[in-house]
Order: sequence, then C-alpha cells, then structure tokens
Amino acid sequence: MRKFAAKTMELISSLQNDRIKNIVRLSSKAKERKEQGLFTVEGVRELSLALRGGYRAEAVFICPELFVKTSSPQVLDGIDVGIQYEVTRTVFEKIAYRESIDGILALVRSQTHLLERLPVSNNPFFILLEAVEKPGNLGAILRTADAAKVDAVIVCDPAVDIYNPNVIRSSLGCLFTVPVAVCTSSEALSWIKKRQIRSFAAELTASQWYHETDFTCASAIIMGTEADGLTPFWLTHAEQRIKIPMRGAIDSLNVSVSTAIITFEAMRQRGF
Amino acid sequence: MRKFAAKTMELISSLQNDRIKNIVRLSSKAKERKEQGLFTVEGVRELSLALRGGYRAEAVFICPELFVKTSSPQVLDGIDVGIQYEVTRTVFEKIAYRESIDGILALVRSQTHLLERLPVSNNPFFILLEAVEKPGNLGAILRTADAAKVDAVIVCDPAVDIYNPNVIRSSLGCLFTVPVAVCTSSEALSWIKKRQIRSFAAELTASQWYHETDFTCASAIIMGTEADGLTPFWLTHAEQRIKIPMRGAIDSLNVSVSTAIITFEAMRQRGF
Repeated sequence: MRKFAAKTMELISSLQNDRIKNIVRLSSKAKERKEQGLFTVEGVRELSLALRGGYRAEAVFICPELFVKTSSPQVLDGIDVGIQYEVTRTVFEKIAYRESIDGILALVRSQTHLLERLPVSNNPFFILLEAVEKPGNLGAILRTADAAKVDAVIVCDPAVDIYNPNVIRSSLGCLFTVPVAVCTSSEALSWIKKRQIRSFAAELTASQWYHETDFTCASAIIMGTEADGLTPFWLTHAEQRIKIPMRGAIDSLNVSVSTAIITFEAMRQRGF
Repeated sequence: MRKFAAKTMELISSLQNDRIKNIVRLSSKAKERKEQGLFTVEGVRELSLALRGGYRAEAVFICPELFVKTSSPQVLDGIDVGIQYEVTRTVFEKIAYRESIDGILALVRSQTHLLERLPVSNNPFFILLEAVEKPGNLGAILRTADAAKVDAVIVCDPAVDIYNPNVIRSSLGCLFTVPVAVCTSSEALSWIKKRQIRSFAAELTASQWYHETDFTCASAIIMGTEADGLTPFWLTHAEQRIKIPMRGAIDSLNVSVSTAIITFEAMRQRGF
C-alpha cells in the first residue's frame, strides 16, 4: 500500500475549490476542453495508456480510500508529486464521471490530431467515421481498432468531441493506443486519394458484399451514423460501396458492430 | 392523423393512478415482471415487432401529442380499443423509459422461453451467452442475431432479465424477432450434446483461431462476460476453444463485437 502520509500532497476538501470547479467544467463541456487544451482521464488503466501514449498529465487527483484498492498504484511512479492532489471522497465523487473504482483522475494536455501527422504503413488499413455522434460507439470502435491494429481511425466532421469522458471510458483507454486524426470529410478524401488508398463506403443498399470485396490493398472503410448512414459526399466519392448481409426483420446493425465485422474480415484476408 | 376524439379511450391524468404506478413497478423491477407475467414495450417499431412475433398486448398507453408524430400509427389497428388508454404528457413522461418519441407504451404478456421449444433447422447455428449481465450487450447481440439470422440465442444463467426495458430498447425490438431460450448452463449443455451440435467456447487464451475454425457443421458459439470470460463449466465442456486475434495494447473487445465477428465469420463460411 502506498504511503500517502510520507508525501507532501495538498489536500482538497472543498467542492468550491477552483481546481475542482474547473474539472467539472472540463468534464462536461467540449468548449472548455478546447479552450484550455485539457481534458480528464479517470482510472489507472486509462491513465497508464495515456501516459504510455505520450500524453502529459498536468494534475492528478487521488482519493486515498479508493486508490488503495487499485491493482496498479505504480501509475503514479512517473508523475511529479508536485502535481498530485489528495481529495476527499465527497470531492472525488463530484469530479468522477463513473463509479470511482480506482480513485484517480488526471487533467491531461490535449494533443493535435492532424491527418498529415498520421503514420502510414506500407499497405495500410484505415477506419474512417463520418459524423460519429455517440461517444459509446466511438469508444467501442476504438477498442476494435486497437484489437485489429488498424493504422488509424480518421474521424471526419464529428458530432462528438474525442476527449468526451464517455469516449475515453468506453474505449477503455484505446483512444490513447490508436492513432486518431480529426478532420473534415473533404480533407480526408484528398489525403486518401493522394496516397492511393482505396475507399469502401458501407451502405445498406450497396450491391457488393463486404465478404466478396478485396481488402488486401491499401484500404479505408467509410462508416456513417447509425441513424442516417453516410452523406452523399462519401456515397459519391468512395471508390466502392459495400454492404453486410442483413437477413433478419430489421435492417440495422450497431455501427460499432458493422465496423468490427468489416474490419476483421479485412484482417482475415490480410492474414492478421 | 388518427382521430382520438372519435374513440372512447379512458383518459389517465394522475400519476397516482394504479395502472400508472404498476407500470413504473414493472419497468423497474424484474421480480414484478416475473410475478405478474407482464413487461413494458415502448415505441412503435418495438411494439409492432412484438405483436408480429406473437406477443399479446394487455394494455396500451398513448400520449396523443407525441403519438401524432409517429411514422407508424397503424400499430394500433390490431389492438382492441377497450385496452387503449390516453395519458397526459406528464403521465407519459413518468412511465416512459426513454425519450418518448413515439408516445406509445404497452403492457405485454411474457412468453416462456423453453429450450425444448426452440425451432432447430437442419444445420443450425446458435449463439449461447453465459451469465450475460449488461442489458446493452444482450440487446446488441440480439440485433446481430437478427441480422445473421441465427437459429436462436440461448441465454444461460443470465444476470439480467431479458424483459429489462433496456434490453428491448437496445435490441431495437429484436428480442421479438429472434428465438430466445433461457435456461441453466447444464441444461443447455445436455440439449446441445443430444442434438450433436458442436460447441465453441470463445476465450482469450485458446490456441485455435476463430477464422481457422470450421463452423459449417451444426454449431453453437459460447460467449462469456466481458469482465470475467467464461466459467470453468464451459471451458471444460465445450468441444473446442477458439479466440479472436487481439493485436493491440489491451486484450479486450466488447462482447457484442466479439460475438458479431465470430457469428459473421461462421455465416461467411456457410454462404450466408
């Protein structure tokens, strides 16, 4: 068990503390996150992945009575004690977005997510999401992207901020393990074309089955929203439209499920 | 637009009405649903699928100002006007579990989900879930089961009631389109063995890749919980253990995603 008493952490016990009030703002408002260039990360696994992924913590808030139960206290080893704060349980419950199993929350500096900076392998595979809006879907797709080890997830014209706490939570921290670019659809299209990456738009009424499609070349699959599918922009500009057989009563798979089915078929063809 | 004035619906405007109080109990408590043999279904799509699937509505509650906006008012055509109730917006918002876009909620009679009654095709494919606990995961898997047209979903020792409102919601009504059995794991095992259905347990440490597994025979895939995987019961008794390649930083796919990846690979092998 970590000995907090031996350290010189400042104790925060007031909900009116300015740092605490700022965390609440950052957790709830994308605009604040953008203006301050900061976001919140909860949980030891998520924070460990963020730090390993090159993100920098600017402040860490610890609730000792919860943190003593964590399986990975070593997450604090690389963090300057000067930016560690002890908070009471009441304060922690105010700032924590979810059930506070680990008792740790960090303020982390945002990174830029420029398309131009994406690493591109010899024969890359990308997942491109148009106008994704549900944090849970983006999070689940990032988990799939991590497992399949795709080159990157390209998030076009998103209706959700990628640093939304629920994206981080539902991705289990894979937001920090998968290269992510955020851009407009037209930027993504010209970037893809310039690199001769084939684009495959997933669409319910396409004539080409996904499992009869060759994904062994440099490829990007383009996925729309669950409610509305892709906009005409991608339906027009993608090189091919593909679909998943839907043999049941309703024509709808969860978008994170559709993405996984196509991605893993591509990886199967590529020999994983 | 449906003319409510022409009908003889009883109007319920009090939150203290016994029927309303009972709906709240049924929505929130599995025990009440079991004892009364009733559950709630919200939304025109969900209710239409339930009725088409042979379920019987015992009472229908309509909020006219919301219901007029629905795209499928014909859902009421087959329902006796004597069991239709008009409710005020305040009352509807009290009983509705989700954003009340359709303005309709029905009390529906439960069905039995006996393993013995499952229809079994010539060369069946089953999804078997052990101890599923998150309603959202069960719902998403039912959508996948509908799209892939599996023979049935077998729910063993569930930690969630299949009539939980969030199962129905997240399945988009596919709870009513997919044959579902609820039983213990040992019942399922002997049922499967008797029918010579091969069982494939999904597990992180298996040596056999899912995409190198032959699913063209009569098959059941056995999926555990996201947190703990399968119990020793299925790891011991399943004929084969299979795994999905996980090439990223964390060893975890969402269970509804894993189920979909294996199920659609099986369907691909079987020619959909």
